[in-house]
Amino acid sequence: MKLEVGCFLSYQCLEVSSITLSIHPLSSDQQFVNKCYLKTDQALDQEIHKDQFNNQIVRIIPNPGYLEIHFSAQVELTSSGILEGAYPEQIDPSLLPLEVLPFLWPSRYCQSDLLVNLAERITRGIQPGYATVIRVCDWIYENVEYCYGMTNEHTSAYEIVAQPIGVCRDFAHLGIALCRAISIPARFISGYANKLDPPDFHAYFEAFLGGRWHVFDPTRKAPLEGLVQIAVGQDATDVSFANLFGDIEMREMKVWCQQVENFSQQETRVR
Amino acid sequence: MKLEVGCFLSYQCLEVSSITLSIHPLSSDQQFVNKCYLKTDQALDQEIHKDQFNNQIVRIIPNPGYLEIHFSAQVELTSSGILEGAYPEQIDPSLLPLEVLPFLWPSRYCQSDLLVNLAERITRGIQPGYATVIRVCDWIYENVEYCYGMTNEHTSAYEIVAQPIGVCRDFAHLGIALCRAISIPARFISGYANKLDPPDFHAYFEAFLGGRWHVFDPTRKAPLEGLVQIAVGQDATDVSFANLFGDIEMREMKVWCQQVENFSQQETRVR
Amino acid sequence: MKLEVGCFLSYQCLEVSSITLSIHPLSSDQQFVNKCYLKTDQALDQEIHKDQFNNQIVRIIPNPGYLEIHFSAQVELTSSGILEGAYPEQIDPSLLPLEVLPFLWPSRYCQSDLLVNLAERITRGIQPGYATVIRVCDWIYENVEYCYGMTNEHTSAYEIVAQPIGVCRDFAHLGIALCRAISIPARFISGYANKLDPPDFHAYFEAFLGGRWHVFDPTRKAPLEGLVQIAVGQDATDVSFANLFGDIEMREMKVWCQQVENFSQQETRVR
Amino acid sequence: MKLEVGCFLSYQCLEVSSITLSIHPLSSDQQFVNKCYLKTDQALDQEIHKDQFNNQIVRIIPNPGYLEIHFSAQVELTSSGILEGAYPEQIDPSLLPLEVLPFLWPSRYCQSDLLVNLAERITRGIQPGYATVIRVCDWIYENVEYCYGMTNEHTSAYEIVAQPIGVCRDFAHLGIALCRAISIPARFISGYANKLDPPDFHAYFEAFLGGRWHVFDPTRKAPLEGLVQIAVGQDATDVSFANLFGDIEMREMKVWCQQVENFSQQETRVR
Repeated sequence: MKLEVGCFLSYQCLEVSSITLSIHPLSSDQQFVNKCYLKTDQALDQEIHKDQFNNQIVRIIPNPGYLEIHFSAQVELTSSGILEGAYPEQIDPSLLPLEVLPFLWPSRYCQSDLLVNLAERITRGIQPGYATVIRVCDWIYENVEYCYGMTNEHTSAYEIVAQPIGVCRDFAHLGIALCRAISIPARFISGYANKLDPPDFHAYFEAFLGGRWHVFDPTRKAPLEGLVQIAVGQDATDVSFANLFGDIEMREMKVWCQQVENFSQQETRVR
Repeated sequence: MKLEVGCFLSYQCLEVSSITLSIHPLSSDQQFVNKCYLKTDQALDQEIHKDQFNNQIVRIIPNPGYLEIHFSAQVELTSSGILEGAYPEQIDPSLLPLEVLPFLWPSRYCQSDLLVNLAERITRGIQPGYATVIRVCDWIYENVEYCYGMTNEHTSAYEIVAQPIGVCRDFAHLGIALCRAISIPARFISGYANKLDPPDFHAYFEAFLGGRWHVFDPTRKAPLEGLVQIAVGQDATDVSFANLFGDIEMREMKVWCQQVENFSQQETRVR
Repeated sequence: MKLEVGCFLSYQCLEVSSITLSIHPLSSDQQFVNKCYLKTDQALDQEIHKDQFNNQIVRIIPNPGYLEIHFSAQVELTSSGILEGAYPEQIDPSLLPLEVLPFLWPSRYCQSDLLVNLAERITRGIQPGYATVIRVCDWIYENVEYCYGMTNEHTSAYEIVAQPIGVCRDFAHLGIALCRAISIPARFISGYANKLDPPDFHAYFEAFLGGRWHVFDPTRKAPLEGLVQIAVGQDATDVSFANLFGDIEMREMKVWCQQVENFSQQETRVR
Repeated sequence: MKLEVGCFLSYQCLEVSSITLSIHPLSSDQQFVNKCYLKTDQALDQEIHKDQFNNQIVRIIPNPGYLEIHFSAQVELTSSGILEGAYPEQIDPSLLPLEVLPFLWPSRYCQSDLLVNLAERITRGIQPGYATVIRVCDWIYENVEYCYGMTNEHTSAYEIVAQPIGVCRDFAHLGIALCRAISIPARFISGYANKLDPPDFHAYFEAFLGGRWHVFDPTRKAPLEGLVQIAVGQDATDVSFANLFGDIEMREMKVWCQQVENFSQQETRVR
């Protein structure tokens, strides 16, 4: 599947401010990034950095005034991370690859250490592995209401259980916390999502089963086949699409992710 | 139904200590208390007090040393508070009797103000009134595990949702919090319970529907027909069977509640 | 000291709604209430109720439309509850009057059971009794910022410690929680306050020392000598000046509390 | 300063278990690791891994039965991370090195997002930079009691504020949370500590000031000059000295860190 993705962001900046952007999808065995454009209406240096999870971070230090950022990329999904064939099993935690262990620990918004009983109760009697994570996602979908404006940047998985209302970020946090609570490594993913309505950055999660990461989305808001991964992290703290430092405010945001027959020859633009 | 109820409590006391007991069932339109004995092996004054909810509190100021307390009562259940005939309806909160309002507010262990969305979600589509409270109880029974030793005296309804494991006290707190969250007054009840296994003080709750209080017990641990009410309160803080002040420790506790054909002529004793 | 106190409240009501008001000061050994007027622009019944703490609650069931409530009272403070002479001592909790015990337990917004270590640390080395409560109030005044808009009706004493910012209600909750944590009974008071700026309903607390209740106010926003008590409770849940049920919204509120040489012959009015 | 450090750990293992150890100090510009021995009484493979923070993790998969682990290292502290000369300043967050940003975000046990007001209050009027962090450490030392057994592996900085009692791990979490709350990057450090009494693994933190990391320890339990760094992380979740998977229990633990004139020629042993 070929997708043209991107975003338009504008900001009002005063003195001494900076933005770090996490909006670049990277090539992997699941997606090939054909072209990437990041342009600003001010002529600015772009400081590029790979973080501890290999995500690409770009920092811009704007001049005071109005700033527009245009980003677009052409991505071909080569393999979706979605299951085909046999169902992957849960790996005994004592034998997990060591680089996977950080995704087994609790994090700010995924207090898996406090949700062990709940996770065990939800998945009792389910075949360990893929079916367990599916059960977790179904439970979240059935028990948590998708609604904007009821949660904020402080809201954690623990609170979502009692609340129980939230947005994609909250759904992903709860899915991750419940998986980790039963010793399945899970990580937060930010991405572009085809057919997400209204268009926005999306958040979902991956669980480590049968030796690799698999995509799950308890919101059921967008088809798994159309997800373009931007960044991975322990939870939302690690993958915020934009971190603002100093006297700077967002004015406008548009995000798109659209399937195409063939990639356009020019940079894609807001539609 | 005739029941002989009681408890045996023993304590080790050092200097300057006191115990307040909330173990006396009182006569009401649901139960007639035929006889009541409270004896201690030390000759001690019993200071009797009716608290703000009309519960009977007895304070004993023991001498240093070992103390035994024997309590027994003969209770005839005249009407169980259990529904017969038509299902009572929820009363519009703007028209509730004013003396019922305190049982609509959140309390230490029943943070109804934080569980509004959850309560609404659980009871969505259910006929307001009796069926709603039954739905709340069923939800608790299906979603919370009954298990000793996982919760303590600090555990509140909010935590039980995420935990989700607890004892009768926790089940009652959650039932109360969910009812109040949807504007149904609810209060905590401590009592003796026939057929409770193992025998112990029991905790359940009442909801105010159709103009009177009705008994509910989400634990399903004892038949509603065999419940003898001791005390009512906003939550467990108000009805603790014994509060200890000073250098005093409980050594032993036995509780009983047994159906009889005819009341015995002597004081009932531990069986 | 003679004070004319009162409030003006207006509401917009739709169908089936009611208001319970807790705005009447009552005569006690600390204050004599000379005259009391409660008038509404609609001709409405006033249902009067004494709650479990002996506060006076008035319920009004307004007709749909706009409603104005005028309340005024003339109050003479006969004894302020403020200390004169010797400093009262803490009473051993095993010997407290039984009617005082409910004010020793934790409540929704005063989780004294979670703040025992903090309370002990703050008051370590202080003479038990009056000096302890003064130390608690000083600690709150020094460590919590008085600021509107940072807390809401869900905010509890536990959160204020970490926050640490709040309004009079939050200050009172924290004072109460810390006192109870070291076995000093404490209760929430709503009242009118002379010289409070801007004028508003005020919240403070009382601690039980040396056999009676004493007034404390960690906010230092109004002189203790000019406080007119409306209602007492375990915390703010019990004494809300107005509880609204149904489709009803507050439009305006004015509160006053003014010292006078002589009481006016007519009903006092908004100034 | 020359230090011989090490630990002795023993475990009882049943089937399918593993241990990941984070006990190896690594050479850096602050410490030179001369020799390192890790021996087990069973002949076992050691799987060595560098995690996302460049800590060295070793995994052992023991045979069922009893297992002893001996670890020792010779470390020369070449520069302590402690301040000499001018006091480093706080770097404007918009200009921080990008690899430092993860240590600005909240984490499981360091909810800096919830402690902004507290941190600002504590450091108000203090010169931004080194003096601010010293103020944070002083405040923790003065306001939190050092005591074993009152906190556990779930305890977070937010709870320590209200509690306020804990061990080195809790002190470090609170220091980190308060620094991040005022935009100073801070990270959790596990280490060996000379003169720590009783000997144990130690936890402290580093703050990023003036372009590099500086050591701080609000517990004041061990001299900063004798700290040997093992691992860094966002909080304790990242640097646990041993993670146990499966049926395995610790039986014994000894830790040492001793200053020597000259390194011994043989492996150092438990003293």
